[in-house]
Amino acid sequence: MTISTLDELFVHSLKDVLYAERKILKALSKMERKATDPDLKSALTLHQDQTEEHVVRLEKVFDLLGRPARGVKCDAILGLLDEADSLMAVIDDFETMDAAVIALSHAIKHYEIARYSTLLAWAKQLGHPAPAALLKLTLDEENGADMALSKLVGQGLTATAAA
Amino acid sequence: MTISTLDELFVHSLKDVLYAERKILKALSKMERKATDPDLKSALTLHQDQTEEHVVRLEKVFDLLGRPARGVKCDAILGLLDEADSLMAVIDDFETMDAAVIALSHAIKHYEIARYSTLLAWAKQLGHPAPAALLKLTLDEENGADMALSKLVGQGLTATAAA
Repeated sequence: MTISTLDELFVHSLKDVLYAERKILKALSKMERKATDPDLKSALTLHQDQTEEHVVRLEKVFDLLGRPARGVKCDAILGLLDEADSLMAVIDDFETMDAAVIALSHAIKHYEIARYSTLLAWAKQLGHPAPAALLKLTLDEENGADMALSKLVGQGLTATAAA
Repeated sequence: MTISTLDELFVHSLKDVLYAERKILKALSKMERKATDPDLKSALTLHQDQTEEHVVRLEKVFDLLGRPARGVKCDAILGLLDEADSLMAVIDDFETMDAAVIALSHAIKHYEIARYSTLLAWAKQLGHPAPAALLKLTLDEENGADMALSKLVGQGLTATAAA
């Protein structure tokens, strides 16, 4: 594979994010099972629903571009999720696990925010207004979900674990 | 290894970020060599200088906590940097390379923002005001660097590559 234009880079990055979103979906389900706090569990269930919708939107973007919705292996998300698995495997306390799950979700959200903001900028530059509108919807939801997570930390969800 | 308290999770995450920052330092140097646009090259040089300072600050945090400044392998950053290497290896056009380097820097910045915002929240919860102040300085710089990168995209640095 050789990438010689921004258009090719854009399509490659869409495939990378499609692969990542599908992996994130499975990871969120595992993290939801590991979490104990009901607010955190609800937030993770909402993220799963949103991620399912993000996959559907990405498939629409591929469709609009006349390309097959095929993912391509994304080492970045695999590294992030491997680390999440290794960390959750060594935590033996419920409240510490909740704190770790919030931190891991936060890292996943930031991975997605970085990717979608880049994809949105490129879609605009390449003159793809309909894909750009779909990518913006997802980016707005990712930012909203990240703010909700920050609020959970701010409300001291993990304060007891710190005591 | 077993993690049973937020304090242990905090120290583990500090080690993880120390390892990551050292890897990022090398990666930024490589990315700066791959970039062509002078504004982008300057931004990457500034990020290298800031990253060196962030490593020194982390070492001070370990010192304040009376712990040795030892890193621990961070699969998340290894995945992100492996992907950066693989992507840069297949791009054969200068402007497309600049667009990719901006996107990769953006992803690295977001990784750091997620980690430092979590570390800052935990330092406050655990009652470590001096480490919290140092972590906040770094977080503010990461946010500033990310905004500068977004500006490069906004100014259409990659617009020519899109043409």
